[in-house]
Amino acid sequence: MESYMLKEIKEQPQAVKNTLIKNKETIDRVVSCIKKQPINLAYLVARGTSDHGGIYAKYLGEYYLGIPVCLTASSIINLYQRNMKLTSALTIAISQSGEGPDVIGVIKETNRQKSLSVAVTNNETSTLAKEAEHSLFCYAGPEKSVAATKTCTTSMMAMAALIQEWSGENGHLNQIPEAITKTLSYFDEIGTKVQPFKNAESCVVLARGFNYACALETALKIQETCYVNARGFSTADFQHGPIAMLHQGFPVIVYAFKGPAMSGVPELLSYLKQIGTHTLLVTNEQTLLKESTEHIYIQEDYPEEITPYISVVFGQIFAYHLALAKGLNPDAPRGLHKVTKTL
Amino acid sequence: MESYMLKEIKEQPQAVKNTLIKNKETIDRVVSCIKKQPINLAYLVARGTSDHGGIYAKYLGEYYLGIPVCLTASSIINLYQRNMKLTSALTIAISQSGEGPDVIGVIKETNRQKSLSVAVTNNETSTLAKEAEHSLFCYAGPEKSVAATKTCTTSMMAMAALIQEWSGENGHLNQIPEAITKTLSYFDEIGTKVQPFKNAESCVVLARGFNYACALETALKIQETCYVNARGFSTADFQHGPIAMLHQGFPVIVYAFKGPAMSGVPELLSYLKQIGTHTLLVTNEQTLLKESTEHIYIQEDYPEEITPYISVVFGQIFAYHLALAKGLNPDAPRGLHKVTKTL
Repeated sequence: MESYMLKEIKEQPQAVKNTLIKNKETIDRVVSCIKKQPINLAYLVARGTSDHGGIYAKYLGEYYLGIPVCLTASSIINLYQRNMKLTSALTIAISQSGEGPDVIGVIKETNRQKSLSVAVTNNETSTLAKEAEHSLFCYAGPEKSVAATKTCTTSMMAMAALIQEWSGENGHLNQIPEAITKTLSYFDEIGTKVQPFKNAESCVVLARGFNYACALETALKIQETCYVNARGFSTADFQHGPIAMLHQGFPVIVYAFKGPAMSGVPELLSYLKQIGTHTLLVTNEQTLLKESTEHIYIQEDYPEEITPYISVVFGQIFAYHLALAKGLNPDAPRGLHKVTKTL
Repeated sequence: MESYMLKEIKEQPQAVKNTLIKNKETIDRVVSCIKKQPINLAYLVARGTSDHGGIYAKYLGEYYLGIPVCLTASSIINLYQRNMKLTSALTIAISQSGEGPDVIGVIKETNRQKSLSVAVTNNETSTLAKEAEHSLFCYAGPEKSVAATKTCTTSMMAMAALIQEWSGENGHLNQIPEAITKTLSYFDEIGTKVQPFKNAESCVVLARGFNYACALETALKIQETCYVNARGFSTADFQHGPIAMLHQGFPVIVYAFKGPAMSGVPELLSYLKQIGTHTLLVTNEQTLLKESTEHIYIQEDYPEEITPYISVVFGQIFAYHLALAKGLNPDAPRGLHKVTKTL
């Protein structure tokens, strides 16, 4: 039987399309509320994969809206029981299950302050959907795999659609389903790249700008399905210390797509080559290929802001193949449950 | 000859004391500027160790000020060249050298908008100190070790002193030098704990709340001086996926001090025991000791907000001992320079 994880990876082009279309009315309503008040901050709360969706939304939101997008330290409200002035903030709470007590705790605080909130969830009947003033839904259908895939890309899409409407700028969102389909077409080729990662105890995933969140998300997928200590870094932060731990043969994945975030990537790749790391490059920039050990070359130029959907889906496929190569069942990571409840 | 790193670790009680005393006048001036305008957000920009100082300041600032403290995605301004509305924000730029172009880029943007900025740096004649409207200094003296130690705790102290004055609440800051001295008194005992980490390719450092930043910083110190793929996690985030990668004997460091962030720690430790990880616990809670493989027991009750100085100094000492045990020179990490310039 095909694993749930694979089945759900493949459902993504349709799921993101549904998310884009079906949230339209709610988004119009939210934006009309936003325009009526002095919102000068977006405040995001999430954990795990949803948190990575939040980081993607931070970059996209700051880029298009020109206002700070702040990721919550939810323990300030939930553990330390302190108040937070959120009156001029839009709080966005992301949780696929809609049942994370820490995420719900922050929304209860926004309600207490009568400040604006939006939930992003795959569960229309969840506590989160009930508590938040507005709700965007993933319309992804049931996600049975413990490793979140379609709820990740659909929550990214829901927030991208909100930001597009709010900013009034066209974010090329209609290209996203096709970009995911394109990435799925590399499915078998990606499978041929996992061998050098099979016996590694750790690996590193690097990206920057819009794709930074995807480095974190790919690392998480590899951690939870393959039990490898994978670590995502911003290519810039990586040079502030962690680069010291690399050695010959160390497995590294680099996401690099045409656009401003390419800054410094050629120099980084050439440094990795010098150390002799095993570098798997995912790129649409042909001139970089010779600098990597192996590559997935995407022969199409998407706007850079669309490329996170390529990276994140590449990462899911890679983690899936690596789990199988290691003889693991990607649907049943040890020690994990579908809904993680922490305060 | 004693290494620079060790020498500088030992200088910290005096360095943080200097930082607390000598910035007093500047802080009074900054707070008087803050009170004159509608500041409802702190906006932090930093990389590497300074970024961890920023995360510490985020928790402390949100706790005491009740306003969102937002960590910059500096690439939005520096790479994508987008504007950010910072008019009601206080921007805090942290850089020990004061020469990071990405940090300076954000301060130039705040200057363009005539919004308020404060530098936190160890270099009084740096570009950052010149560009920022106000400057808090670390007063740490020259830091020769590539692995930042005293510039980390002093920049934490500088921001804590600013937040204390701004909030008008007493944050027990005068206990910090003594807490660091106390931690230094465990120097030899910490050295006896590194053996099980000596041959590990990776390890995990866990903490939450005020100490979350210290888990990240300890992991960075271990990465850069010991070339181990160390990874810091929030104990809450850790349960959203990464926990799956643990196995018997996996080395884990846990920081847990009396206070609200202790929530969930006993359950986590008991789960780690069940898996059979090698858990080194740093704590002042005696009842937890039986749940760990090894421990450093701090026999004193500090207010929880002071304990990050214990954790971060413990982490420095641990990384120092581990580097020596591995036959490495902690002063000269491969591939790193004292000043890292990325845009």
